Amino acid sequence: MSIVVVGSIGYDTVETQFGRVDEALGGSASFFSVAARFFSPVSMVAVVGKDFRDEHLKFFAERAIDIRGLVQREGETFRWHGRYHEDMNQRDTLHLALNVFADFMPELLPDQCRADFLFLANISPQLQQRVLSQMKSPKVVAADTMDHWINTERTALLKMLPRVDILTLNDQEARLLAQEHNLVRAGRAILKMGPDTVLVKRGEYGVLQFSQESMFAVPAYPLEEVVDPTGAGDTFAGGFMGYIARHGKITESVLRTAVVYGSVMGSFVVERFSLDRLADLSWEEIDARYRAFIELTDSHHSRWISQ
Amino acid sequence: MSIVVVGSIGYDTVETQFGRVDEALGGSASFFSVAARFFSPVSMVAVVGKDFRDEHLKFFAERAIDIRGLVQREGETFRWHGRYHEDMNQRDTLHLALNVFADFMPELLPDQCRADFLFLANISPQLQQRVLSQMKSPKVVAADTMDHWINTERTALLKMLPRVDILTLNDQEARLLAQEHNLVRAGRAILKMGPDTVLVKRGEYGVLQFSQESMFAVPAYPLEEVVDPTGAGDTFAGGFMGYIARHGKITESVLRTAVVYGSVMGSFVVERFSLDRLADLSWEEIDARYRAFIELTDSHHSRWISQ
Repeated sequence: MSIVVVGSIGYDTVETQFGRVDEALGGSASFFSVAARFFSPVSMVAVVGKDFRDEHLKFFAERAIDIRGLVQREGETFRWHGRYHEDMNQRDTLHLALNVFADFMPELLPDQCRADFLFLANISPQLQQRVLSQMKSPKVVAADTMDHWINTERTALLKMLPRVDILTLNDQEARLLAQEHNLVRAGRAILKMGPDTVLVKRGEYGVLQFSQESMFAVPAYPLEEVVDPTGAGDTFAGGFMGYIARHGKITESVLRTAVVYGSVMGSFVVERFSLDRLADLSWEEIDARYRAFIELTDSHHSRWISQ
Repeated sequence: MSIVVVGSIGYDTVETQFGRVDEALGGSASFFSVAARFFSPVSMVAVVGKDFRDEHLKFFAERAIDIRGLVQREGETFRWHGRYHEDMNQRDTLHLALNVFADFMPELLPDQCRADFLFLANISPQLQQRVLSQMKSPKVVAADTMDHWINTERTALLKMLPRVDILTLNDQEARLLAQEHNLVRAGRAILKMGPDTVLVKRGEYGVLQFSQESMFAVPAYPLEEVVDPTGAGDTFAGGFMGYIARHGKITESVLRTAVVYGSVMGSFVVERFSLDRLADLSWEEIDARYRAFIELTDSHHSRWISQ
C-alpha cells in the first residue's frame, strides 16, 4: 500500500573526517522516500526551487517514487551546510537557507488524501496538522519532530500528538518533550500525550520502542566506517514505514520487524555520502544485513542453541 | 564449578541525585562475588584493613562466598568517595585512599590455583600477571582493565592479554587500547592482541561482544530509576562469569546467555546504593527480569509471531 511523505528536499554540503560532498541531494523526504521505496510505493509532498536539477527528478522517477506532489516554485531549493566532528554525534551547521521551503504549504493531491499510510517528516507541527486535516482516514500516521519545534511550538505539537499513531524523535528530544531525564519515564510520558508507539532514536546506540504494553530495544548495526550520518533518522523511518505499509497493518511483531528493517536501512545510508549508498543498494544486500542483524541481536536461540 | 576472583574490597561514599551513602561495602571483588554467587561457588582473593567490619565478613559468609583468601592487614581498608552528575555517565572522585590495597600482593591458596575459572578484576596488569603465574591450568580466564593501566602499563597489559580468554572494558577504554576511534575496528584490533572474546561495556547502552566469528549486541535493560551506578561493570562480570562457570564451558550460545545474565545482574545493582539491591535479590526476580530482557530484545519470533 502507498505511503504519503511530507517533508523537505534540499541540497546538502557535508563535511566529515572522510571527505566532503557539495550540493548533494538531501532532505527528509528524499531519504525517507528512497528507503521506503524498497518496501512499498511512495508518494511525495515537497517543494523545490527552480534550481532543482533534472537529474534528481530523474533519480526519484527511476525508482518509481511518485513526484506529482513535488512542487517547483520560483526561488532556490533548501540548502544546508554541516560539518561533523570526529565524534559524529556532534555537528555544526555552517550555513542554512530555507529558501522556497520557508513558505512550504503542503497541498495533497486527491488520491494522496485517501492514502492509508502517512509520514510527517520533521516540519512544523502546524504544517503537520494542516496535512492531517487534509487526510480522509489514514490507517497509520507517523510523525517526526525535533528540539526546535518542542521549544517553540509546544502547544501545536501537543495538539497534534493525539492524531499520531507513531512518533519518532531522538533521546534528547524525548527528554525535552517529556521534561524528564530518565528515558523510560520520558517514553511512557510521551505515550500519554497520544501516540500508540514512541520510537526513540539513539543514533549509534540504536532504537528504543515504547508502546502501551511493551518495550523493545535494538542496538544499531555496528559499522566499521560511518562516512556521513546525514539522513540516518529519515532513512530509518523510511525502512520502518515501508515495512509497515507492505504488511498493511500494525501488530507488535510487524512493529518490531519494521524497527529492524529501519535500522538496516539506516546502517546502509551512513556508509557513504548523501544518498549514494541507497542509490545502488540491492534487495540481496538488505536481506543479508537483515539476517546479520538478527544474528547480531539473537540472545537466546536459533543457530546458536544447537552448538 | 568454582570461580576465583582477584580484586578490591573497599568502603565507598557515594553521592547521586537520589541521595548519599557513607562507607558502604564496595570494591570490584565484592560486587563480582555477590553477583556470581547466584550462579556458582566463588572464592575471593582480596585485602582489607583492620577496620573492616565483621558485619561485612558475615555478609559474604552468609552467601557462602569463600573468604579464606580475604587477607586482613595492618592499616585501613581502601576508601573511595565519588559524586555522580545528573548524567550518571559522569562522576567526580572527591577522595581516594588505596590504604592496604596499595601493597596488595595476591597469593592464591593451593586449591585456588587449581580453579577452572578466574576473574582478574581491575588491578594492575603486573598483579594480574602475577596471579596468572600461580594458576595451574584454568579453563577460562577473564580480565577487566581501565584507562589508567592502558596509559601507564601498556606493555605489561599487552604481555598479559594473550593469556586471557575474555577481556572486559568500556568503550572509551577499548578505543584507547586499540588506538582506534571506530568501535568495531577497535574490538577486532583487541581480539588480535590475544583474547578470544572482547566485551565492550557501554553503560546505559549495553554491551558489544566481539569474538573471532561473530558480534553480539545487547542493549542495557531500560530502568525507570538508576540510583547508583557504582559496581555495575563488576556486577555484570559476576553474572557473566557465574553463568559460564555454571555451564562449565564456553560456546557461542553460553557466551550470549552469559552476557544477558550479566546485563540482568547489572540492571539490579544500580537500582539501589552499594550492594543493597543484590543483598535481598531472589532467583525469582532474576528469572523474571531475564525473561523480560529476552522479550525486550526479541526482534523476530517467540510470542510476537503468533499475533
